[in-house]
Amino acid sequence: MSKEKAVVLLSGGLDSATALAIARAEGYRCYALSVDYGQRHGSELAAARRVAGSIGVEEHKILHLDLRPIGGSALTDATIEVPTRPTSGIPVTYVPARNTLLLSLALGWAEVLEAWEIYIGANAVDYSGYPDCRPEFMRAFERTANLATKAAVEGRGHFRIRTPLMELSKAEIIRKGAELGVDYSLTVSCYAADEQGRACGVCDSCRLRAKGFQEAGVPDPTPYRC
Amino acid sequence: MSKEKAVVLLSGGLDSATALAIARAEGYRCYALSVDYGQRHGSELAAARRVAGSIGVEEHKILHLDLRPIGGSALTDATIEVPTRPTSGIPVTYVPARNTLLLSLALGWAEVLEAWEIYIGANAVDYSGYPDCRPEFMRAFERTANLATKAAVEGRGHFRIRTPLMELSKAEIIRKGAELGVDYSLTVSCYAADEQGRACGVCDSCRLRAKGFQEAGVPDPTPYRC
Repeated sequence: MSKEKAVVLLSGGLDSATALAIARAEGYRCYALSVDYGQRHGSELAAARRVAGSIGVEEHKILHLDLRPIGGSALTDATIEVPTRPTSGIPVTYVPARNTLLLSLALGWAEVLEAWEIYIGANAVDYSGYPDCRPEFMRAFERTANLATKAAVEGRGHFRIRTPLMELSKAEIIRKGAELGVDYSLTVSCYAADEQGRACGVCDSCRLRAKGFQEAGVPDPTPYRC
Repeated sequence: MSKEKAVVLLSGGLDSATALAIARAEGYRCYALSVDYGQRHGSELAAARRVAGSIGVEEHKILHLDLRPIGGSALTDATIEVPTRPTSGIPVTYVPARNTLLLSLALGWAEVLEAWEIYIGANAVDYSGYPDCRPEFMRAFERTANLATKAAVEGRGHFRIRTPLMELSKAEIIRKGAELGVDYSLTVSCYAADEQGRACGVCDSCRLRAKGFQEAGVPDPTPYRC
């Protein structure tokens, strides 16, 4: 039991599943954290459970935080439609302060576990342009984390925000995950997946995912509903 | 309706009530945010409602996020006792990553509201030594907030973390609040308050509060249970 611990944010999507597989391959004992924040695609959480079971974690925790009272996103406000075509600028699927919040929750748990590594499957190549997926945000959060916490201030450890997918294209992420044996049929990326986790095929996230499989030359196992 | 908006984190304690009164006095339309995170002292939330009503806010939102599955603090883990005497170092009432998390939630709502000011009643003079109450933490979070959010990245505004109590002693906070008409009998600071909001008188938070009233020369309206 000498292996170091890592907390891995696990949404149930393709990217976070790959980040978890990488953390495992790098030798960490992994503690997966998912957050039920009232997102439309509740089937993501079922996918997170399947992925955690398939890749193997010490523990998988699901926290509940309903962000619908805050709204401001197509993912947390049912009155805002998920776009089915590319849009300019940062799309309406952006959830205000989501990664800051998810990383804060991961940080709290990591501090209790004395897990100094926090993995997040953020990517700034084939992505939706969300500001909180960029390297400069991650560096700023890491700095904040090490000022915020008792464990860091007392010198017991130094938190690192690990973003192994940051500079990879979607195709490179898929090839990497396939090498590590990730079963992508278990993952759900679609913003509008149905209860069975079947994808719409037309949202931003579906388009990026499908293009990734095509470019990677890896068969796409995604169940589509049409 | 030309006044600018501010989100104010409101715990129901003395400090956050004063921060809200200051934000109001500075001319902001205030949106109060409280978080039910499974803290022992649930009477704090009832106090937050009374304070919001008394001082006057545009809206008071209470979000629910149970941090007990994470634990690691006497405030969120019933098996860790709240100390009744001063302890050395950062006390066990420290909640892992709490202010990072609370500020993240405030940031999410502030972005939806286009409220560029976020008030928090943090104090680094008469305080419990929590690392996430220090100015360097607040500056790091502010930097993170402006990299994290669509509103900031698109140039619609710049978020500021406002800490009007940071450099004040507890006595100075109380004098300031008394001048602004804050009714401190509505607030609950005690870490182990009972359902009626009556204070224990012996925890760290009670001791700091009682000493503050004494030094301020303001009558202490706190209901004690013994």
